[in-house]
Amino acid sequence: MLAMAAAQLGLKAHIFAPEADSPAFEVAAAHTIGDYTDKAALTAFAAAVEVVTYEFENVPAETIAILDPLVPVRPNRKALETTQDRLVEKLFIRGIGLATAPFASVEDAGGLARAVAQLGRPSILKTRRFGYDGKGQATVREGSDLAVVFRSLGQKAILEGVVPFVREVSVVAARGLSGQFRAFDVCENAHQHGILSTTRVPAAIGAETEAEAIRMARALVDALDYVGVLAVELFVVPVAGQSGVETLVVNEIAPRVHNSGHWTLGGAVTSQFEQHIRAISGWPLGSTQRYGRILMSNLIGDEADAWLEVLSDDGASLHLYGKAEARPGRKMGHVTRVYPESV
Amino acid sequence: MLAMAAAQLGLKAHIFAPEADSPAFEVAAAHTIGDYTDKAALTAFAAAVEVVTYEFENVPAETIAILDPLVPVRPNRKALETTQDRLVEKLFIRGIGLATAPFASVEDAGGLARAVAQLGRPSILKTRRFGYDGKGQATVREGSDLAVVFRSLGQKAILEGVVPFVREVSVVAARGLSGQFRAFDVCENAHQHGILSTTRVPAAIGAETEAEAIRMARALVDALDYVGVLAVELFVVPVAGQSGVETLVVNEIAPRVHNSGHWTLGGAVTSQFEQHIRAISGWPLGSTQRYGRILMSNLIGDEADAWLEVLSDDGASLHLYGKAEARPGRKMGHVTRVYPESV
Repeated sequence: MLAMAAAQLGLKAHIFAPEADSPAFEVAAAHTIGDYTDKAALTAFAAAVEVVTYEFENVPAETIAILDPLVPVRPNRKALETTQDRLVEKLFIRGIGLATAPFASVEDAGGLARAVAQLGRPSILKTRRFGYDGKGQATVREGSDLAVVFRSLGQKAILEGVVPFVREVSVVAARGLSGQFRAFDVCENAHQHGILSTTRVPAAIGAETEAEAIRMARALVDALDYVGVLAVELFVVPVAGQSGVETLVVNEIAPRVHNSGHWTLGGAVTSQFEQHIRAISGWPLGSTQRYGRILMSNLIGDEADAWLEVLSDDGASLHLYGKAEARPGRKMGHVTRVYPESV
Repeated sequence: MLAMAAAQLGLKAHIFAPEADSPAFEVAAAHTIGDYTDKAALTAFAAAVEVVTYEFENVPAETIAILDPLVPVRPNRKALETTQDRLVEKLFIRGIGLATAPFASVEDAGGLARAVAQLGRPSILKTRRFGYDGKGQATVREGSDLAVVFRSLGQKAILEGVVPFVREVSVVAARGLSGQFRAFDVCENAHQHGILSTTRVPAAIGAETEAEAIRMARALVDALDYVGVLAVELFVVPVAGQSGVETLVVNEIAPRVHNSGHWTLGGAVTSQFEQHIRAISGWPLGSTQRYGRILMSNLIGDEADAWLEVLSDDGASLHLYGKAEARPGRKMGHVTRVYPESV
């Protein structure tokens, strides 16, 4: 989707990927198949392009270290290194004065016991790296054997206390090369089995909470000297005893376009993909105006088999990603519906 | 834009083109560079794809004759052969009872003299084939030397009488494999130097005229057993002595997605490109609902140099086509603006 956004702006995309059959190759002017640590391939790639970006945060830091001296990499190395480790990310978020779930670093089973003593049960053990869509997580319940729980992850982790949230929202925002900032309207997200299921816009939150969410996103991108689109997932927590007052807790940040922003493709004047391309190109950011109320539904695994029904549903916009195989839990596409704002 | 619409639906596009550097290659899964009459190349191409379509009407009939027995070609051969010759097209339009400008066939300078005696001056001599964007046309004025005018075209032509129109509109519509019909709202078009300059939607015409325009488009696609998106350019002519009453005269038809439908990309639930892909794939057609009032402006020649200003114009959506060279009169891109309907 980034490659197509670039093409619509007259730019040529060159994809670097380790996979032999990335769907992005089919909509890009050029591609290189190479390992993320192949210095020769990365050096040739850097010489062929004017700016480098990435669409997921598990690119090794080593890759960026090779590219960074050769070609502008946006978002920058700090953004990538901060967000690819849950512990570093949480320390960064706290460091700029924003709230996170209570957490403790866990390096072994003994460390898990100490962390559980501190944060209580239930609590959630998460790998520090490479977790997504509910992967790399285990819940510590009453009666859980901590040694078994730690072994199920088997690597450095953090334990997170449970946040008593009433809803999950996200801010998809962009920061330009000169610091310009634009946020799409706050999205409300529902998950199933740890995977994003639907996104609705606007979120069912008050105007003050919405403004605070966007201020938090701005604080994060400014602190990272960020260039590009970033997503901030937030828990909305009611304040006890104060009806209608809510606080926001940062769940996680993603240094990239985000599934909860897919609705912007067709649902807003500028898509998150175009916004990212504008930002990394050093261009002005586009309007984030919505065309109406939004419902975005992911098609996960064999849900994508229903594509013909979706095509028959008047007003539904279907997007399929061209992935070869529909495995359970795999995001195969999404559907966006735009309703008149007044309804 | 068709290749990208296909990719968004999870389909792979394979482009066949004689040019060595078609911009479409950069967003397609595969491409073949071949002459339109290269039977071996076309046969291999037909074996590699499930359906063939075309995006301009000057593909030789011979090409379709080679492909047609091997693979479904949509729109069909009749649609192509009818619309690539102005005389055949006008006879077809008249044949189904719709109005055209008065016309006469012209095969030589003597024929031009007879046609001018019939249709008067001014009138417009147009080549029967390969005309577009005002190319292949010459005006016969008072005092024009008919031999000189004919020589300026030098091929079989038709002379068209002048239609006293007050505005030019177009219908961009689709017909599916099973006869399903959907039209986008009627567009109002302004030209400069024979090239489309801006498209506005809705057109400043009455509801009855709008309905009649769409009925005419439906009659045309039904008569052609058409599959895909087709555009009908119409002149709006006031009826003398009847205030507010207008008739419609068909100017020309294009068997393809059309510049006056570019606004649908971002301005409607389904773009004309997606609609065409749906139709030729045998899928249900999508909603043609608009997101607001539309102004689409072409960027012609060096107008595209102003791309940075367009990017800075909040609410403007820029599309650049990635053409290598900005020649005068060449369409380099377009800008779409969507305004709330109520304003």
